[in-house]
Amino acid sequence: MTGSVVIAGLGPGTDAMVTPEVNQALESATDVVGYIPYVRRIAPREGLTLHESDNRVELDRARHALEMAVSGKKVVVVSSGDPGVFAMASAVFEAVEDGPVEWRNLSIQVLPGITAMLAAAAAAGAPLGHDFCAINLSDNLKPWPLIEKRLRLAAEGDFAMGFYNPRSKARPEGFARVLEVLGEVCEPERLIIFARAVSTPEQKIRVVPLAEATPDMADMRTVVLVGSSRTRLIRRDGAPYVYTPRSVPE
Amino acid sequence: MTGSVVIAGLGPGTDAMVTPEVNQALESATDVVGYIPYVRRIAPREGLTLHESDNRVELDRARHALEMAVSGKKVVVVSSGDPGVFAMASAVFEAVEDGPVEWRNLSIQVLPGITAMLAAAAAAGAPLGHDFCAINLSDNLKPWPLIEKRLRLAAEGDFAMGFYNPRSKARPEGFARVLEVLGEVCEPERLIIFARAVSTPEQKIRVVPLAEATPDMADMRTVVLVGSSRTRLIRRDGAPYVYTPRSVPE
Repeated sequence: MTGSVVIAGLGPGTDAMVTPEVNQALESATDVVGYIPYVRRIAPREGLTLHESDNRVELDRARHALEMAVSGKKVVVVSSGDPGVFAMASAVFEAVEDGPVEWRNLSIQVLPGITAMLAAAAAAGAPLGHDFCAINLSDNLKPWPLIEKRLRLAAEGDFAMGFYNPRSKARPEGFARVLEVLGEVCEPERLIIFARAVSTPEQKIRVVPLAEATPDMADMRTVVLVGSSRTRLIRRDGAPYVYTPRSVPE
Repeated sequence: MTGSVVIAGLGPGTDAMVTPEVNQALESATDVVGYIPYVRRIAPREGLTLHESDNRVELDRARHALEMAVSGKKVVVVSSGDPGVFAMASAVFEAVEDGPVEWRNLSIQVLPGITAMLAAAAAAGAPLGHDFCAINLSDNLKPWPLIEKRLRLAAEGDFAMGFYNPRSKARPEGFARVLEVLGEVCEPERLIIFARAVSTPEQKIRVVPLAEATPDMADMRTVVLVGSSRTRLIRRDGAPYVYTPRSVPE
């Protein structure tokens, strides 16, 4: 029996955003590996072993998946959102590059999912409808000055932006600093979207101008979107629509 | 009967990447509107009218959808990829903002899809596994100097990049210029991925160093990904894996 690793994106929360190819991979898996809350989304069944692991042990989890595949298992590594966007796919390939040669000759397939940033954008309207950047605000794996540098360059280029991991208990001051930097570079009317628990029953979308944005509006379940200078708010009965026009005049 | 507009993403090509919520919206639609090749992906059925329209008439198509919704129809506007990424969602909201007040009080919902850039990344490995930018290289709706400015800032920030619409018959010289600019800012070994017809039977993924990238490697069905300076190639039996590590050392 030939083993394999599929790194599959479960989307931001609802099963209504899980693609058919991801469901099919789960149906033919012998083993599912992932962070506890993502593995708990998978229905148990005969012939399937679920392996839950803690947060921040991505490389161990990746190696475990690769070892099982070498021994003939059909392993699915589950990620929330898209596994290629600040999630498990890079961790698996890091393990592969540093691991034994039989790991790199395994069949390893990445199945994309709906990433939180784009689900958040859809829930708000179309704020990422023009050029945009995605930035992980966590400084666990990169120096903080690089985050600020990218933030300033993205703002200077008038990109819209999506921020992952805006705020954690371990570094509550980082996102406050991000808002300060944006305040130096962008006008106070710049539209900021706080999208919490997107696509789940607890979804909450809040739109504020930069001048009214405060650090406590984000937590670890929040994706933050920043409009470009051209992003517009359409007021209406009910929640407003936020969108970035497709065109920039000469 | 209350009408509505759903702007739905069909993903990059295969039905295996269409989300259940998009299929459900299509099942309850009375009218489907979109660019010809996308509408042709929808199976005809009793009670459903298919409205095909040509390329480059996005605003007309959006207004048509909104008019039908006001008259009580359940309209789905289909987009390839994700409607919020260089696709129909912004066009619909532009029409809404400039249109009669009854348009803005309609129920308008955006259902995200797998966008070509992320499907291409998954097919190659995980080249967008760290901070990245998405840039539309078409200068139909924005001045060319803005494209070059964003390109330089993104490269200066060492973002990975995804390019949409790299090359058209109408402006074949644009992408050649993009490669020149990258050559000024990035090292010749920088990894470039040309991903053509992603997720279709004609899918072709080609990975070359920047020094060997040529304009003819891209056409209108190609998404181009540019690694960061840290993006790695894993050689193996079969197609290589390309990934960007999660960490940047101090």
